[in-house]
Amino acid sequence: MQEDVPKLDPQATRCPIPIVGYDRILMAHGGGGRLTHQLLEKVFIPAFGNPLLNARHDGALLDVGGVRLAFSTDSYVIHPLFFPGGDIGSLAVNGTVNDLAMCGARPLYLSAGFILEEGLPIEVLQRIAASMQAAAREAGVQLVTGDTKVVEKGKGDGLFINTAGIGLVDSGREIQPSRVKPGDVIVLSGDIGRHGVAIMAAREGLAFQTTLTSDCAPLAAPVQSLLLSGLDVHCLRDLTRGGLASALVEIAESSQTGMVIDESCIPLDDQVRGACEMLGLDPLYVANEGRFVTLVAPQDASQAVRILQQHSAGRGALIIGRVESGPPGSVVQMNRLGTRRLIERLSGEQLPRIC
Amino acid sequence: MQEDVPKLDPQATRCPIPIVGYDRILMAHGGGGRLTHQLLEKVFIPAFGNPLLNARHDGALLDVGGVRLAFSTDSYVIHPLFFPGGDIGSLAVNGTVNDLAMCGARPLYLSAGFILEEGLPIEVLQRIAASMQAAAREAGVQLVTGDTKVVEKGKGDGLFINTAGIGLVDSGREIQPSRVKPGDVIVLSGDIGRHGVAIMAAREGLAFQTTLTSDCAPLAAPVQSLLLSGLDVHCLRDLTRGGLASALVEIAESSQTGMVIDESCIPLDDQVRGACEMLGLDPLYVANEGRFVTLVAPQDASQAVRILQQHSAGRGALIIGRVESGPPGSVVQMNRLGTRRLIERLSGEQLPRIC
Repeated sequence: MQEDVPKLDPQATRCPIPIVGYDRILMAHGGGGRLTHQLLEKVFIPAFGNPLLNARHDGALLDVGGVRLAFSTDSYVIHPLFFPGGDIGSLAVNGTVNDLAMCGARPLYLSAGFILEEGLPIEVLQRIAASMQAAAREAGVQLVTGDTKVVEKGKGDGLFINTAGIGLVDSGREIQPSRVKPGDVIVLSGDIGRHGVAIMAAREGLAFQTTLTSDCAPLAAPVQSLLLSGLDVHCLRDLTRGGLASALVEIAESSQTGMVIDESCIPLDDQVRGACEMLGLDPLYVANEGRFVTLVAPQDASQAVRILQQHSAGRGALIIGRVESGPPGSVVQMNRLGTRRLIERLSGEQLPRIC
Repeated sequence: MQEDVPKLDPQATRCPIPIVGYDRILMAHGGGGRLTHQLLEKVFIPAFGNPLLNARHDGALLDVGGVRLAFSTDSYVIHPLFFPGGDIGSLAVNGTVNDLAMCGARPLYLSAGFILEEGLPIEVLQRIAASMQAAAREAGVQLVTGDTKVVEKGKGDGLFINTAGIGLVDSGREIQPSRVKPGDVIVLSGDIGRHGVAIMAAREGLAFQTTLTSDCAPLAAPVQSLLLSGLDVHCLRDLTRGGLASALVEIAESSQTGMVIDESCIPLDDQVRGACEMLGLDPLYVANEGRFVTLVAPQDASQAVRILQQHSAGRGALIIGRVESGPPGSVVQMNRLGTRRLIERLSGEQLPRIC
């Protein structure tokens, strides 16, 4: 990595596109990028705003009866229901398990809410339930409560699943964007973009075929190894909607720091690279379901990489950048040719319904 | 209530309709009646079956780090989004608050997952978020974590909401169907059927109009009053999908007891009675969103009624029946004319998408 990063004008990190002006929901409001952020800022935070929600973490950290819990939820609307490397059921378990893990919690219990479209073959539901149970067993969690609703044909799309999860956080542990500070090292757990590209390949009408499979996997085990090692882990974030780029921008904004990453360090499968080039996608923004970043104190970075590499989901772990003092909220990528690129939140929608 | 109840043939409580034979999801699978039960028995329990899920309560009772928690979830697909007496937002808060309350828990925290259909006016989302916040404040809970997904126009229906909730259960408290025993008295918290009839009236194309409003309300306060009074409360159940009838059948089946209720005791608003007569609905099966039954030791029944009557949601509380030794799973209604009717689970779908 180069050491000299230009001081950017803080104004330049602001969104040049007006963030008001839409009066109806667009697909991009669900894409995890700028419009999702706007919905949070303009609708949900003003309505529900409270310190717990304002922390903008992957889940809420709660004190319940003297015990520290993480609590998180996600709805899954992925299309198609089955894809190379997983299905909506394994995704619904791993996604919420991973959100809990990113809070520094040991995931314990999940709920599952199903919204079924009239006409869904019951055999499909059975396969997905079996997949959820297998994923839950692998991740070490139990599905303990649930609900089923049915909507008329044409008012849903086969099957949507919501999962919410509860995890236990060891006392004294603080995994929060607010703990990120200049000097921290950014560790990435492996190659990026496989989930999003595998979903595209699985959809009808795409002009390419790959042998790629989604990276969908539970991340609780590598994260627990990191935490139990005693390393000073400041923040964790999985790279779902909006990809690596959006995750880093969110952390930089929440922690009011700047970040620098080195493009040449970021691992890409050749098929992901090829598909992204062909389709005009930026792999930095493509969703993953089994990848995350860890921000650690500089003296702990090498050890963090070694610990992650002992897990299948962290086999390709490596250092990709570091945290700087500013400008607050900026993420800069040092490119192969020595140029610098300011990374922004995903604008618009790269791949709809990838989770 | 009459004291002499005939001993029924246990065989007669079995479902006379084959419970297999459907290979696709029908609207009735979401109705809270026999097909919902079948889906649970044939798909979810075999896949996820564990002791916590098998308890068949409104939520799961968990021990996390030495603290007893209740955990529950529901998805809300009600149509229309706004109805007399509430909207999908207040319903999504109260519904999950009430499920926690029925576990004997003090509701504390909710998650919210939104599935939006492309084209939904953002102003509608803002109104619903504001309604959720108002309902959360009234019920004394906080919305602490959430998620938003968007699906294409025609793949959803405006807005679906999932909420999951966490509540704290005092140590030593056991509110479970398994605690119900012969001699227990059944206390109903007020008149039934207003939610379902109000929704029907709000839908387009119905041939009647009423001034009815939904009974949608948080039940945590009356339940906490009951529990803190020291009365021996054995079981609580709110009367949502499938109505009073399905709630009693479920408890009777889980507790392997029989029940007798007196039709003449069950309060009905005149407009509910009229609408049900006109539409051929049985109010015993119509959904409520602010009514529940309490099963208490006989010596505590009168006091339970007095406590509930001090709360707006329990103003009309009264004793409607009692638990007998059998036949297991049977619920018998003593009718006004002195005849007896065996109450069964809702078969088919009375009112689709009422929650």
